[in-house]
Amino acid sequence: MHKRFGHDKTGLETRFDAQRIAFAPIVFQATRLLRSTGLLEAVEGRGAEGMTAAEAATETGLSSYAATVLLECGLSADLVAYDNGKFVITTLGAFIRRDEMTAVNMEFIHEVCYLGMHKLEDALKLGEPAGLRVFGEWKTVYEALAHLPENAKSAWLRFDHFYSDAAFPAASRIVLERQPKTMLDIGCNTGKWASLCLARSPELCASLVDLPNQLEMAMQNLREKGLGDRAVPCPVDVLDPHAELPSGFDAVWMSQFLVCFSEDEVRTILRRAGRALRPGGRLWILDTFWDTQRFDAAAYCLINTSPYFTAIANGNSRMYRAEDILALAREEGLALQTTHERLGIYHSLLELAPG
Amino acid sequence: MHKRFGHDKTGLETRFDAQRIAFAPIVFQATRLLRSTGLLEAVEGRGAEGMTAAEAATETGLSSYAATVLLECGLSADLVAYDNGKFVITTLGAFIRRDEMTAVNMEFIHEVCYLGMHKLEDALKLGEPAGLRVFGEWKTVYEALAHLPENAKSAWLRFDHFYSDAAFPAASRIVLERQPKTMLDIGCNTGKWASLCLARSPELCASLVDLPNQLEMAMQNLREKGLGDRAVPCPVDVLDPHAELPSGFDAVWMSQFLVCFSEDEVRTILRRAGRALRPGGRLWILDTFWDTQRFDAAAYCLINTSPYFTAIANGNSRMYRAEDILALAREEGLALQTTHERLGIYHSLLELAPG
Repeated sequence: MHKRFGHDKTGLETRFDAQRIAFAPIVFQATRLLRSTGLLEAVEGRGAEGMTAAEAATETGLSSYAATVLLECGLSADLVAYDNGKFVITTLGAFIRRDEMTAVNMEFIHEVCYLGMHKLEDALKLGEPAGLRVFGEWKTVYEALAHLPENAKSAWLRFDHFYSDAAFPAASRIVLERQPKTMLDIGCNTGKWASLCLARSPELCASLVDLPNQLEMAMQNLREKGLGDRAVPCPVDVLDPHAELPSGFDAVWMSQFLVCFSEDEVRTILRRAGRALRPGGRLWILDTFWDTQRFDAAAYCLINTSPYFTAIANGNSRMYRAEDILALAREEGLALQTTHERLGIYHSLLELAPG
Repeated sequence: MHKRFGHDKTGLETRFDAQRIAFAPIVFQATRLLRSTGLLEAVEGRGAEGMTAAEAATETGLSSYAATVLLECGLSADLVAYDNGKFVITTLGAFIRRDEMTAVNMEFIHEVCYLGMHKLEDALKLGEPAGLRVFGEWKTVYEALAHLPENAKSAWLRFDHFYSDAAFPAASRIVLERQPKTMLDIGCNTGKWASLCLARSPELCASLVDLPNQLEMAMQNLREKGLGDRAVPCPVDVLDPHAELPSGFDAVWMSQFLVCFSEDEVRTILRRAGRALRPGGRLWILDTFWDTQRFDAAAYCLINTSPYFTAIANGNSRMYRAEDILALAREEGLALQTTHERLGIYHSLLELAPG
């Protein structure tokens, strides 16, 4: 693998980078507010001429004090420059003001992760999502989701959807190219994937695996689209290692599913998923692996989502490398056929078969 | 002023920098734990050969999962590199493991600021330290200090002392060079400055201004050093703009004092401080101004301490520029004589006189 993330640094740069990390939570909060209060927009509106903190305060309805504190933080983080008493937008400031992915990430971190991340140490030592207690007494974020405060819930859903759905169209073309007649959709969630495949492939039948409540919602969605007669609900708790899956499928599918489980759990899921295939069938795993990313920024986002799984989601899973999953698959007698790279945002599709 | 903080960036770098800010709280917490759990130390101990996550787990007593999550975050933040299954320390990782200032800053941010910073928006809009409520119902951190949890209190004191004391020896040489016979020490705190000057200058008499409780502690400290007979306590609440100060002093002194007050409050303090001087006397202001720093990293730390004043300390002060203070001083008829630069860590000493 090429060298990621680092580059040679001077002593001064090293010192500065250390302080960037030390004050990171402050810069995060200030940046979020520079965006949400409209300060970045106001400053950008003045172009190269820029504006004083007092003018920015008037335009945004903030106090002059508040505008000064935030704009100076923005200066330190290179979101604005400062020249002759005036703040001027930078490339980074303009990007952060506009970029949807940055906004989705920041709101997810602020609303869902920020407070609980203070308990990361407990979570790592206990193997429990100790930060989830910020919201109440639940074992996993999945149980808690419906009960989260509105801001946290919508930030969670927006983050989840932003990354999960974009890869489905391209992935379905690849999977359906092999003309499967039967598909097992493990962790079917809202039924979105099954719905796409059933609509595109009129001879396909899909069996959906999830917890009962989730299955009901998925089946309801499929019925509304007139696809319910080719879908079979299979209520299985895959966390129970003795709960077998139905078998004989041309295709077994898992999308952003293994990321929710510990390595030991992933191993038992792969074992049973492999047994669910008929001879010649394929196991398809769509996920966001940090080691298959072309850009460091993408790997950075994925890696730093792992502590969310630790402190908030479940206490024992993480954003895996494709190599982590493939090593576990090999132990369970599953061999990689092809890796389909760069579907949607950040996704890779692993194609495996027993052998 | 030279251009601070920014440099020209490619589109990819801009994207990455935006995500660095979006995930900043995660990287902060992971870095803190990489240091405190001993992972950085373990990895550094293996030098260029490096070690696997499993080996690092064994050596630190963490689970393999915990070591993997933290080391991968460390990889993304360039604290460790990853090569052939092994993690190897980087220059930045080794620096963060050792550097005392980074440790002092990180613990201050984690223990004192982190949780309250979630309320930065409320604090800015209300002009109140809304984040202080994390610890209880107080109006300022100064009232709260004695009641903070032990970790928070010791992190606060360590941060405060790390920056405040280092400049005193050099500053006292400059101030005493003018051979003042009388000095007014506004915001005398524990009496450390007065003690230093009285010990070094046997003919000096000092009048100490602070709140009564604080004054008692300062006088006690001076008496223990045999300096109490040349010190006069003057209990004054400088926040009351009608509370006059004693007058006729050769030197009026304020060290890291104005940073605790809003601009309007600073103005009334400077007005009364100027009136306390005898003709030919000097007003001395020792503080950490971000615009007089030689290094961007120093300005960065100072600027990003401002939101601590907003959200935790008092809701209305900030780390000022020397130019902010000098502009207010000019309005109050005080003119800069000399700026003495780079005393201790980050400090400048402003020498002013009526004129």
